[in-house]
Amino acid sequence: MHGKDEILGIDKRLHFGVCYYPDHWPQERWAYDMQLMRDAGLECFRWLEGSWTLVEPEEGGFDFSLVDAVLECADRHGLGVILGTPTYAVPAWAVERYPDIVARRRDGSAWYHGSRRCWDYTNGDYRRLCDRVVVELAQRYAKDSRVWAWQVDNEMWCHLDELWGEGVERAFQDWCRQRYHQPEALNQAWGLAFWSRQIAHFGQVTLPGPTPAHLNHHQVADYQRFLSDLAIGFLFGQRDAIKAVNPQAAVLHNCPFEPIDRPRLLEGLDIYGHDHYPAFAGGAAGRPQMGLNYGRFRRYAKRLWVVEQQASQVGQTSYRLPTAPPGDLSVSALQSIGHGCDLLAWFRWRSYPAAQETNWGGLLPHWGEPGRHYQEMSQLIATLRPHAEAIAATVPQVSVARICSFDQYLVHRAEGWIADRIGGPEVGRGALISLGLNEDQLRATDLDGRYQVALVPHAAALSLADIRALTAFAQAGGVVIIGPLAGHRDAQLHAPDQAPPGDLAALTGTSNAEATTWDEGELSLHEINGGSSVSAGHWAEIIQPVSEGVSICARYATGWLAGRGAVSQRSFGAGRVIHVGVALADPVLSWLWTECALPLPDQPLRVFTLGAEVLTRFGGGHRYHFALNHGEAPAVFEVRRMLTDLATGKLLTGPFTLEARSWRVLHEADPSSQALASS
Amino acid sequence: MHGKDEILGIDKRLHFGVCYYPDHWPQERWAYDMQLMRDAGLECFRWLEGSWTLVEPEEGGFDFSLVDAVLECADRHGLGVILGTPTYAVPAWAVERYPDIVARRRDGSAWYHGSRRCWDYTNGDYRRLCDRVVVELAQRYAKDSRVWAWQVDNEMWCHLDELWGEGVERAFQDWCRQRYHQPEALNQAWGLAFWSRQIAHFGQVTLPGPTPAHLNHHQVADYQRFLSDLAIGFLFGQRDAIKAVNPQAAVLHNCPFEPIDRPRLLEGLDIYGHDHYPAFAGGAAGRPQMGLNYGRFRRYAKRLWVVEQQASQVGQTSYRLPTAPPGDLSVSALQSIGHGCDLLAWFRWRSYPAAQETNWGGLLPHWGEPGRHYQEMSQLIATLRPHAEAIAATVPQVSVARICSFDQYLVHRAEGWIADRIGGPEVGRGALISLGLNEDQLRATDLDGRYQVALVPHAAALSLADIRALTAFAQAGGVVIIGPLAGHRDAQLHAPDQAPPGDLAALTGTSNAEATTWDEGELSLHEINGGSSVSAGHWAEIIQPVSEGVSICARYATGWLAGRGAVSQRSFGAGRVIHVGVALADPVLSWLWTECALPLPDQPLRVFTLGAEVLTRFGGGHRYHFALNHGEAPAVFEVRRMLTDLATGKLLTGPFTLEARSWRVLHEADPSSQALASS
Amino acid sequence: MHGKDEILGIDKRLHFGVCYYPDHWPQERWAYDMQLMRDAGLECFRWLEGSWTLVEPEEGGFDFSLVDAVLECADRHGLGVILGTPTYAVPAWAVERYPDIVARRRDGSAWYHGSRRCWDYTNGDYRRLCDRVVVELAQRYAKDSRVWAWQVDNEMWCHLDELWGEGVERAFQDWCRQRYHQPEALNQAWGLAFWSRQIAHFGQVTLPGPTPAHLNHHQVADYQRFLSDLAIGFLFGQRDAIKAVNPQAAVLHNCPFEPIDRPRLLEGLDIYGHDHYPAFAGGAAGRPQMGLNYGRFRRYAKRLWVVEQQASQVGQTSYRLPTAPPGDLSVSALQSIGHGCDLLAWFRWRSYPAAQETNWGGLLPHWGEPGRHYQEMSQLIATLRPHAEAIAATVPQVSVARICSFDQYLVHRAEGWIADRIGGPEVGRGALISLGLNEDQLRATDLDGRYQVALVPHAAALSLADIRALTAFAQAGGVVIIGPLAGHRDAQLHAPDQAPPGDLAALTGTSNAEATTWDEGELSLHEINGGSSVSAGHWAEIIQPVSEGVSICARYATGWLAGRGAVSQRSFGAGRVIHVGVALADPVLSWLWTECALPLPDQPLRVFTLGAEVLTRFGGGHRYHFALNHGEAPAVFEVRRMLTDLATGKLLTGPFTLEARSWRVLHEADPSSQALASS
Repeated sequence: MHGKDEILGIDKRLHFGVCYYPDHWPQERWAYDMQLMRDAGLECFRWLEGSWTLVEPEEGGFDFSLVDAVLECADRHGLGVILGTPTYAVPAWAVERYPDIVARRRDGSAWYHGSRRCWDYTNGDYRRLCDRVVVELAQRYAKDSRVWAWQVDNEMWCHLDELWGEGVERAFQDWCRQRYHQPEALNQAWGLAFWSRQIAHFGQVTLPGPTPAHLNHHQVADYQRFLSDLAIGFLFGQRDAIKAVNPQAAVLHNCPFEPIDRPRLLEGLDIYGHDHYPAFAGGAAGRPQMGLNYGRFRRYAKRLWVVEQQASQVGQTSYRLPTAPPGDLSVSALQSIGHGCDLLAWFRWRSYPAAQETNWGGLLPHWGEPGRHYQEMSQLIATLRPHAEAIAATVPQVSVARICSFDQYLVHRAEGWIADRIGGPEVGRGALISLGLNEDQLRATDLDGRYQVALVPHAAALSLADIRALTAFAQAGGVVIIGPLAGHRDAQLHAPDQAPPGDLAALTGTSNAEATTWDEGELSLHEINGGSSVSAGHWAEIIQPVSEGVSICARYATGWLAGRGAVSQRSFGAGRVIHVGVALADPVLSWLWTECALPLPDQPLRVFTLGAEVLTRFGGGHRYHFALNHGEAPAVFEVRRMLTDLATGKLLTGPFTLEARSWRVLHEADPSSQALASS
Repeated sequence: MHGKDEILGIDKRLHFGVCYYPDHWPQERWAYDMQLMRDAGLECFRWLEGSWTLVEPEEGGFDFSLVDAVLECADRHGLGVILGTPTYAVPAWAVERYPDIVARRRDGSAWYHGSRRCWDYTNGDYRRLCDRVVVELAQRYAKDSRVWAWQVDNEMWCHLDELWGEGVERAFQDWCRQRYHQPEALNQAWGLAFWSRQIAHFGQVTLPGPTPAHLNHHQVADYQRFLSDLAIGFLFGQRDAIKAVNPQAAVLHNCPFEPIDRPRLLEGLDIYGHDHYPAFAGGAAGRPQMGLNYGRFRRYAKRLWVVEQQASQVGQTSYRLPTAPPGDLSVSALQSIGHGCDLLAWFRWRSYPAAQETNWGGLLPHWGEPGRHYQEMSQLIATLRPHAEAIAATVPQVSVARICSFDQYLVHRAEGWIADRIGGPEVGRGALISLGLNEDQLRATDLDGRYQVALVPHAAALSLADIRALTAFAQAGGVVIIGPLAGHRDAQLHAPDQAPPGDLAALTGTSNAEATTWDEGELSLHEINGGSSVSAGHWAEIIQPVSEGVSICARYATGWLAGRGAVSQRSFGAGRVIHVGVALADPVLSWLWTECALPLPDQPLRVFTLGAEVLTRFGGGHRYHFALNHGEAPAVFEVRRMLTDLATGKLLTGPFTLEARSWRVLHEADPSSQALASS
Repeated sequence: MHGKDEILGIDKRLHFGVCYYPDHWPQERWAYDMQLMRDAGLECFRWLEGSWTLVEPEEGGFDFSLVDAVLECADRHGLGVILGTPTYAVPAWAVERYPDIVARRRDGSAWYHGSRRCWDYTNGDYRRLCDRVVVELAQRYAKDSRVWAWQVDNEMWCHLDELWGEGVERAFQDWCRQRYHQPEALNQAWGLAFWSRQIAHFGQVTLPGPTPAHLNHHQVADYQRFLSDLAIGFLFGQRDAIKAVNPQAAVLHNCPFEPIDRPRLLEGLDIYGHDHYPAFAGGAAGRPQMGLNYGRFRRYAKRLWVVEQQASQVGQTSYRLPTAPPGDLSVSALQSIGHGCDLLAWFRWRSYPAAQETNWGGLLPHWGEPGRHYQEMSQLIATLRPHAEAIAATVPQVSVARICSFDQYLVHRAEGWIADRIGGPEVGRGALISLGLNEDQLRATDLDGRYQVALVPHAAALSLADIRALTAFAQAGGVVIIGPLAGHRDAQLHAPDQAPPGDLAALTGTSNAEATTWDEGELSLHEINGGSSVSAGHWAEIIQPVSEGVSICARYATGWLAGRGAVSQRSFGAGRVIHVGVALADPVLSWLWTECALPLPDQPLRVFTLGAEVLTRFGGGHRYHFALNHGEAPAVFEVRRMLTDLATGKLLTGPFTLEARSWRVLHEADPSSQALASS
């Protein structure tokens, strides 16, 4: 048995756990359940994030007896606990006494509250009640060595990503005052001379609720910023309450929904806890792409765990997705490991027989008998155990940096036509998957040499610092792909007072001032020298070289745009800059990788079947390739050099086939990665 | 002329009537209209259900002069009256004085009220006003022999099947207190430990209005139960007011919408009055299935009338369905008679030129001249008159009992995914129609020997008494078809603490613990011995025999389920039990009937054209077969033994053809049914 | 340079202008912008309609210094100004102080107001504030000769075409009192005996908000009439304030949305100002039809201007339509001229970099450098300048009168099934375009000899005066096409108390009493003598001749309707009357024109390519044909007699081709039109 320090000092091994809610079951059952966990190799469980009433059955009347009992029983069975603060599921007494803690809808009426997460984070009573329960928990358990880590709240903004009502309006006015200081600054920033809406003081600021005419997108973007700041402040407040008692306590939050400034959030947490439910991908073909969700967080996570790993089946009151067939649990778990997770906790131990998640399956079924999901989980842990330390010493191989600051993220969120016509900031993921590439999402200013390509899906809202960072990256040998909207919007979402791409022109050597949406069918591009052509969506910028050494490598082939430049290329320092005037959707990005011979990392193992993938971790002199087939159809993997099968120890030299929902982990020595391990 | 006693003692004849609203027309026109009715053979009319303002033009100021005049004029023309209580259309003065009688929407705001049925049935003022007008009417007319029967309110829950607002919430809290007595019982029943929503007292119970996250389905089901109880209490209150004056008065309600516990409602009424509008079937092909709507009520109706039988055309402000072509009126009326109605009242006498039902056609057009609908109606009555007593002495031949208690009905209503993936409790009607079968809907505990097959479309929410009744039915020689969800939900909609099918296992001899929705296309089943296969929808339970004598008769042929059991069969007592792991949709049910050689009743007449059907009534030594062609295409009817055409008296021995929208009633002597008539 | 008098006395020339918002840009830029305008031939700009805060930065604190400065600068550059009243964009201070000026939604909650036009026109504070600012502006500038004309408000009912809330309800009650005087009259008009909703006083009238059951369509129609009266009263109040200072001031309103009684509005204005944005047509193929929008207003406009002519690109926060390709600006402008506009003002001068219309392009881009749109505009003006007087002396050639009074317009708006099944009052526009026909919309009572055909798309809601006017039109040699619903609804939307077509029978010589929607596929008609057939939608009236000389020229070929009459024809005086029982959609109308040999005007120039058209203006001895190709594909124009190309002076005798988005104006002498010019 190992304790918290070992886990949280240097993570020396892969660890496995589960989400377990002992308060949902008779106390007599606990020991039986915990023994089953131990038998399977589980080492910890997450708990308490939904049990506020348990610890505070009436206002200010705290009762930790059951928490004590659970911790004691866990400890007796050698299980650590990840303890959640219970602030997303508020007791009935609190709603009864403080009805205004319930969030309001756009029309000003309160949500019904017989569910979870419908709270007004600007409400003083809600914040005060949260503070107290967190402080009480922290004082009692923050120094408790049986507690491996703390989860603050749960899945921020899940279900509800907007707040309304007078209290929220006042909070938004305060936020605007802090951001703009003077009314005139806000009038400028939001363009309020237009339609005569200038404010004279911040009390005249309104929320961006439904208006008969269109919304102001600057206001919409600021409202998103406000929500992000509100959420981060709320979560960091809980973190601080725990750290105030024990600065060494490890604090995580899991799977925040949008809008949230992810880099800012993760820089303030010790651990990022992901929720990984491949069932939501809608089918095996979508699962490798869904794995790229890890790239949303990985670059900024000090430590990457998955605190909700899909066990069997997913469902809530109004939907029920198919159960996980045999093999599915293993392949899904290895996908998390392949993406860099070093602790996996399945959700959940046992299906609950009632309430909103009756359909959400656990490792055990409703009736509590270990069955095929439990067996498969046990088998997987046993297979990985001999390599748990070696794998934990490696990190994922990621060659593509997808550039997306929070300001850039807001572009498509504030201007709906951009999402419709150009796509969101995650366009082109399918192309990366088909190329066997993994990606991290990051701010341009965090670019470094670990990446080969910087992909800028929306080249809007770039600061001068961003442009300098991209320039330095190209200078140093990287490939920069500047996508659409370069110079067409600044970080405040204003259109420019100089012809686009403005300050980016020094990097791209181009003009892209003329731009248009395209409605009559899809655009088509053709390559300039050969003739390979590609469909290019519904947005076109005419790319014209304005500097020496810039060449057009693709032109439009559609309508009045025919013959005009669509993609340019230039050498830049030790690297290259490509400027693309169309959306970086899958076909365009795949085509670009071929036509422009963009870099690929070392890939000794490849697969081209939909729903199959290879993930690679490296470091400490090792390289592990996770060959996964999520789908029903057999998948053939090409082997380009000799690899060792981790499970059997056998050498593999030629192609092999994985049947439906099966996997292999392949190992090779990698002396080049020795340095990394010690850094 | 015959009076009320004759009608309501033993119904000796078919009767015909109409819905007539004399208060909508000049008094000078009444005699002309009533004479036209008599000329056509009509014997009564329904009236007053929408005329509250007429009898109470101001609060408490009753004026029955026009009612008296109408009754007198009707009596003079030998017409009886079915008198409606006017509580679904409330006067403007009532809304003005008691605005809270208007029901509220989910957001808490009141509905606009320039229409009908938007009342809050929990509101004390509304109930008091209703009580008074009903008592006034009853005191004046409940003993009046010109009144054949009373209709209480009209089409309960039509248009509005949910109530919201603070008053409703308090009523729901009271209802919960009555059901659960202790908060802890409700906490258990609703699983409120999950997401920490336990109540400490019933004042903390909320309505299941829109929440950001999913609803609690136990709460949703209880809210439906509450609405059903509220409606039944309201209707029975009116019944009691009438019976208090005259215990012999016959009371009906017509066509309640959902949610309502139909057996409970019908057990408290003297007559069930159906509304039969085949135009809503959307085309002739759907009409035979729509006829099965009679099966929703027939088993529990002491007497079956149709008080709104489609006359010509159906429409309201925002829609207008096609008019009834020649023949349509007759075929539709005979469908009602074939399904067991002994009194038919067409809706309505004459189209009203204004307001919400301007488009709803009558027997006469807006301009009041008798035309083709009036002529067709007269001709039909004349043709049936000689047989009106003989037909009224028979009952419909129904061999299938569709098992659906109110608890079972709530399963798909509370858990939306069940409706989506498995269907509602009326799945498979199309298969029954194609087999020439008629069905009643009933509680398992009301099963008896009149049925050959007990079909359980959702085998969830079965009580031990239900299981005993099904067991006895099979024991006695019946065929029990157990559909999906056996043992997966109890009556409280909890998932089980024993492996499914739980207590049903003694009947089925199977396990169906592993179950899953299916998203990638439709499932396919194949028959175990031969190979006939069938599409089977989006829900699969793996059926495994666990008892002697149980055999698998179909297996899955799709994906990872391939080869696993889907349907089992066993002999049981004098009967059989079939356990089906997939939805009992049309293709599966048709396939089952063939593959398992399920019983069919005696069918001397058959038709296989879409939109055509045969309905049979028997008793008193007679058997009447109603051959109906609802559609445009000619339909050929097979005749398997000698039958007599009722209209011509000629013997029929071979097949015959019915042209578009035409019919024949065929008679045969049936000594075996003599007993039934005297029972 | 010419002044206001010259413009508004007799318009002797075509004029060009622009929408320019100097208050959005630094004052230092004004002179540069205005000089660019003059260089291009622009003569005026529209301004101030969105700048209330500019002139009244706080309540009652007026500041006209910037207005003065703009007018002075404009005058210095020889530019006139069309001055807008700023009442559609209300200052933040007004909303803060008088929150009830914000309109409410159907649920009673207020709209958010960070946008434009969300005002409650029944609110006293809003009206008072509007009155004051308009009076202040009028007093200062109504006699100012630099002001060419006044625009009152902007695009009435755009974005928001319904009002709710208690204040609105009271205003609606007052309006009903004025219309009906006695409650009983309203009870009759709305048919309130039905469902027992009779009012005892007007305070019981409600708004037609969402009810659980269907709405009363008479109430809905009256609510539309109320909104129309409210809007016209509001706009005429502003007009009167201006005229009170200077009765000679020219007042326009631009592009009101629905519901508004257009003839009544236009009869009270000096100028009608259209907004012409062909981008909303969704593609070139729809642009000729969109041009027919001019026909909505032309018949009643004393003078026809376009005050918002599309410059480059159209877009708001949530959408962005494609930019105007080269040539598009010219073709679109010539379409406005071809339809009769004598003053064109492009919208807008320069794209604004922020707020809701960041995506709405101007003649200059966001960064202010003249580019291809500016160049194309300058070139177009230069080409037309030599002919500006001759063209302005002509009027459009329009041969079809589409009969649609405001009562008739309300038919499809109040009864949704009519819009669904028969279409709106503008059905069949595509057929007219394909025949090269132009149309005006007018009341039957305004018919005169300038038209060849009177097309009645909905023959409902016709008054006796309307019928007399149609009769006289036919008598005098015109062709009257009576469409569906003849006699089925009166102006109050009641169904008839005599068999349809009622009073129209003397004109049509037919009965159309039997009518039905048609759901099973589309109806088909076939011509009676030859066999050409046509699809005819989802509504059928059986047309039966009842007078001498009426012949059936088409019969139904579908279902039970087969063989029954669908279209009749008769000679009538010097003209003809055609009665059509089906919707006058494009296929039926095209077929009718051919089968019945309906009249076409003199067309020396024709084109049959989708997206191309010919518009003709004539008068003063001249005839100008505007040959326009809006589309991408080349279009061949047939030339049936010799015409002169206006740009080159060359004679054209044979067919010619216009490439994508190009145009020719062709001239011919037309002595027959001399009279018209002097009238």
